[in-house]
Order: sequence, then C-alpha cells, then structure tokens
Amino acid sequence: MNKNRGVNWQVVHNYPPERWVYLDVQKRSMQELGRLSAEEFQKAPKWPLVLVLDNVRSLSNVGSLMRSADAFLVECVYLCGITGTPPHRDITKTAIGAEKSVRWEYRSETEQAIQELKQQGFRVWALEQTHGSIPLHETQLTHQPTAFVLGHEIDGVSQQALALCDGAIEIPQFGSKHSLNVAVSGGMALWEYARQSLSHES
Amino acid sequence: MNKNRGVNWQVVHNYPPERWVYLDVQKRSMQELGRLSAEEFQKAPKWPLVLVLDNVRSLSNVGSLMRSADAFLVECVYLCGITGTPPHRDITKTAIGAEKSVRWEYRSETEQAIQELKQQGFRVWALEQTHGSIPLHETQLTHQPTAFVLGHEIDGVSQQALALCDGAIEIPQFGSKHSLNVAVSGGMALWEYARQSLSHES
Repeated sequence: MNKNRGVNWQVVHNYPPERWVYLDVQKRSMQELGRLSAEEFQKAPKWPLVLVLDNVRSLSNVGSLMRSADAFLVECVYLCGITGTPPHRDITKTAIGAEKSVRWEYRSETEQAIQELKQQGFRVWALEQTHGSIPLHETQLTHQPTAFVLGHEIDGVSQQALALCDGAIEIPQFGSKHSLNVAVSGGMALWEYARQSLSHES
Repeated sequence: MNKNRGVNWQVVHNYPPERWVYLDVQKRSMQELGRLSAEEFQKAPKWPLVLVLDNVRSLSNVGSLMRSADAFLVECVYLCGITGTPPHRDITKTAIGAEKSVRWEYRSETEQAIQELKQQGFRVWALEQTHGSIPLHETQLTHQPTAFVLGHEIDGVSQQALALCDGAIEIPQFGSKHSLNVAVSGGMALWEYARQSLSHES
C-alpha cells in the first residue's frame, strides 16, 4: 500500500504490533467507485434475484427499495396492487434515479407475480414472521433463483400471497416493536443474499 | 408440528419427497412474537453495539435507525452535530415509538462521541467507501464492543470523524448509484452484526 498519499492510516487496536493493519480512510470518489451508467446497468448481467412488493403503500419505501435493488443487481422489481409505480416524484426522491436503471413490472395482483416467478423456477420467500418462518441467518439462498415478497407497512404480506409462497423468512428481532421498516427489511434480505453470493465466490 | 390449525402448509420445491418440509405461513400475532415493553427493553441486557449518527440530516432516517436499533438491542445511539433529537414528530413517524425505548445521547461533535467510545473499549467503524475499507462480508465484528458511524446523506462520514475511527467498513455495491440510503446501510450493518452474533451462539 502507498503510505505517501497524505491520508490517515489507522492502527487496529488490540493486535500485537506485528499484526497492525493500516487502513486508508480517504473516501473514494464516484469515479474511483467505478459505478455503471443507467444504460450499462440495464445491459449488465444480474443476480437471479427479484423483489415483489405486495401492496407497499409508501412511495418513499418503493424508491428506497429501488435504490437497494440497483446496488445488488436485482433482475426485476414487481410492483403489485396499490404499490405506486414510476414515474413519480416521491419515488424518485428516495430512488435518486434507480427507478430508471432497475427493471420493474406492474401486476395488479401479487399472486399473479408469485405464480409467474414460480413457473420461471424462482424460489419465492415472503419476508414475514410466521409460525414456520426460517430465521434469515439460517437460510441458504444462492442455490436457486430467489424472490423476496415484501408486504404492506401495517398489514405485512397478505395471507393470500403467503399461501402461494414457498415459505417465509423472518429477520430475528429482539426489541419492543412489532417489525422493521419494509425498506430496511428488504435491504437486510438483499444484503444476506449478496453476502452468501460473495462468500461462495471467494 | 400441529397440522390441524387450518393454515397453509407449503412444500419446498426440488427436494425429494422424504425431505419435504412443511412451513406454516400463518402470521404470528404481536402477542405470539413476545416483544418487550419499552420499560422491559430499557432494563434488558443489550448487545455491545452502538450507532453514531454523524450529522444525519433527515429526521426520517434518524427515526428509522432508532427502529432498527430497537430490534437489535443496540446499547445507545449517539446523535451528533446537526442530527435531530427526540422528541420530534418526524422522528416518531418512522421510529414508531422506538425513540422512547432506545437510549440515545446527543453530542455536538461526532469526534467527541468517537473518542468516548474508544476510551470505553469500542472498536469504532465508519460505514464508508474508502481506499482501505473492509467489505462488510469480510468483517469479524463480535469479538469486541462495536460502534458504527453513519454519515450525512450527501457527504457521508466527515473526513475528520473518519480520521478518528479504527477503520472503515464498506457494503459492496454493484449498481449505478453512489451509495445506499443511510438508514438501509445502517440496517445492513446491524443485521451483519446480529447474524455473526447469532451464528456464534448456535
């Protein structure tokens, strides 16, 4: 590593000196991050990973999920039922343009999207706290194309949609509130999929 | 498992019949989830896990991070600089009351919070894309008390705060946008900490 860049090098604590690690904390620029353009993104190979938004009420959550879908090369986001669709100013506000890079489809019924995905060989998981839900850290997600169904802010994934899913995945939670925000939950599920993919690669 | 509850039992596909798994997709009620009250939460043992919000502009992000902090038994959330503090209607809107269960502290300078935490034995990680940042899936977080520093929506963690951190952790991203939403990033880091803790336990 080039230690002459005039940046701060941090010593990780509690290591013996021979194991000290110097970490360059200078932020990388947009150019250094090497991000794709919207056009490049559309042509780039995606992960076999899909989001299904089952009547997500808030356009802010829709946009935020689009932004996360962009980061993790999601193949398609299905916007279902009352879920708002682009173009919409309130989606753009949180998607910051990812609604133009990420492919999306609208279905009036969530059940239809789930059935299509199952026919295409996707394993369809509802993100829900059910009696038989699998804790997120016990999942094995990367063996098969994967779809996550995310539900309404108050009501969660509808029982009719749940009935069509291959099962439910639950994010273990230990606090006082019923559940996490849907855009945050979706982000955690996407990260878990990405983590498992990246760990298998290395 | 009681198969007579009149709920839907799903067969996980592509398994030979002897390995079929029946998953109960009936949602669990708030009572069945066994959540803590705000008072119980305050007395409950926490994970040695702290969030530091370095000039987070949006009250909606502050509230959302409070809600996630509640779910993962975060010890304290440091609200620093321009970061808004409860009580505030816009924080409550996304925290849905978690701002009353989760302990928080205000510091006018983020650097002060970081120094206090380092003195208390925390390893302080900025969530940032830097030249020396460690990918989130390559971290080992649970050996030591851990603090995540989350930055401003546009500017990220300030270079002055970064200079005091033990290093930076980066969420690998593959799309067209510069970064993820700060509340979503924070949620992913919390989940990664929780995942590692839960995996070590089992």
